[in-house]
Amino acid sequence: MTPSAATPAYRRLSVEERRSQLLEAALGLFAHRTPEEVSLDDVAEAAGVSRPLVYRYFPGGKQQLYEAALRSAAEELEQCFDEPREGPLLTRLSRALDRYLTFVDQHDTGFSALLQGGSVVETSRTTAIVDGVRRAAARRILSHLGVADPGRLLRMTVRMWITAVEAASLIWLDDGKEPSADELRDWLVEQFVAVLSVTASRDPQTSALLGTLTADD
Amino acid sequence: MTPSAATPAYRRLSVEERRSQLLEAALGLFAHRTPEEVSLDDVAEAAGVSRPLVYRYFPGGKQQLYEAALRSAAEELEQCFDEPREGPLLTRLSRALDRYLTFVDQHDTGFSALLQGGSVVETSRTTAIVDGVRRAAARRILSHLGVADPGRLLRMTVRMWITAVEAASLIWLDDGKEPSADELRDWLVEQFVAVLSVTASRDPQTSALLGTLTADD
Repeated sequence: MTPSAATPAYRRLSVEERRSQLLEAALGLFAHRTPEEVSLDDVAEAAGVSRPLVYRYFPGGKQQLYEAALRSAAEELEQCFDEPREGPLLTRLSRALDRYLTFVDQHDTGFSALLQGGSVVETSRTTAIVDGVRRAAARRILSHLGVADPGRLLRMTVRMWITAVEAASLIWLDDGKEPSADELRDWLVEQFVAVLSVTASRDPQTSALLGTLTADD
Repeated sequence: MTPSAATPAYRRLSVEERRSQLLEAALGLFAHRTPEEVSLDDVAEAAGVSRPLVYRYFPGGKQQLYEAALRSAAEELEQCFDEPREGPLLTRLSRALDRYLTFVDQHDTGFSALLQGGSVVETSRTTAIVDGVRRAAARRILSHLGVADPGRLLRMTVRMWITAVEAASLIWLDDGKEPSADELRDWLVEQFVAVLSVTASRDPQTSALLGTLTADD
């Protein structure tokens, strides 16, 4: 045995690495518990460090850790919407929804607690982060649809559908993740086409778009 | 002139009357400002009483007044859903939406602030009040549809549509109440039929229902 094998595989983490490690531990906890159920002690334990060390990196305590974890989760969620601009539009939407539903599945309790509101950690900052994700989703959809200057009714339709998808995700989690993610995804895509069709009868821009949407599928 | 005409038309209000008067003043303020913009002094001034008197009735201060005003607004909103069980179903839905949109119009800033979240007065109690209204709306719709035991997909569809209506209301307020309330109402009814039609192809219960819904209009 060499001496190095007897000592624990320990090395001092850089400030950035330590911060990432704590954030990852916090995210893991906030994903599957309500914010109320997560304590700084839990985060310290999950990261295998002391509570004072957590405070050194996050002097704002649980609130600061929650917001940092939420920002990180929001980035991950926005990446779910990254989709190459090729192939039929509804296939792209299906793939993005697949990734989104996987994210929801993997962050179930935290996702519900966040979107149901009324949590002690909810502030105008956390609300702004969530709204940022919604706006990013709407921009991404309109951009894939090839609409540079969406009119009021088209914008409203897309944003209403995004809200309906959120509501569906919450009910899905509440209902023990039934129906299957695949069935939910297909149903949501069909609803997207249906609400666009309704808007198309009132709005020439949406009407023109709908032709493209259904033609290439 | 009789002596009584010279004295101000003042009489001591009962406890219940005074409480109602303060609540009404608070509601008027919370309807058109964000909770952050309303102070106890504003409520006292609007009600024509002293700040200590407001505190005597609402020792919990602004938070307690806000929650009491919200409870009162929630009751008013639930009354919007009262609709006689006669005539075509979609006509009933239109009439309820008319009353709902009038309520939204009359409580614009407060409605937005409440539903956008992140406000200092938001607690698990205020969230529960808002959720109660949503559940009441869903129950009312399913009851008008004559469904005693709604399956998962039908329940989800109705709740998703209610969320979409909320989203539409927020965007409508943001967009300076455009399109007109009448156009918005008709569009929302059409969306209701459209999403039910999508669900109908996956769910026999919804399919049977859709026949009734479109037959009587």
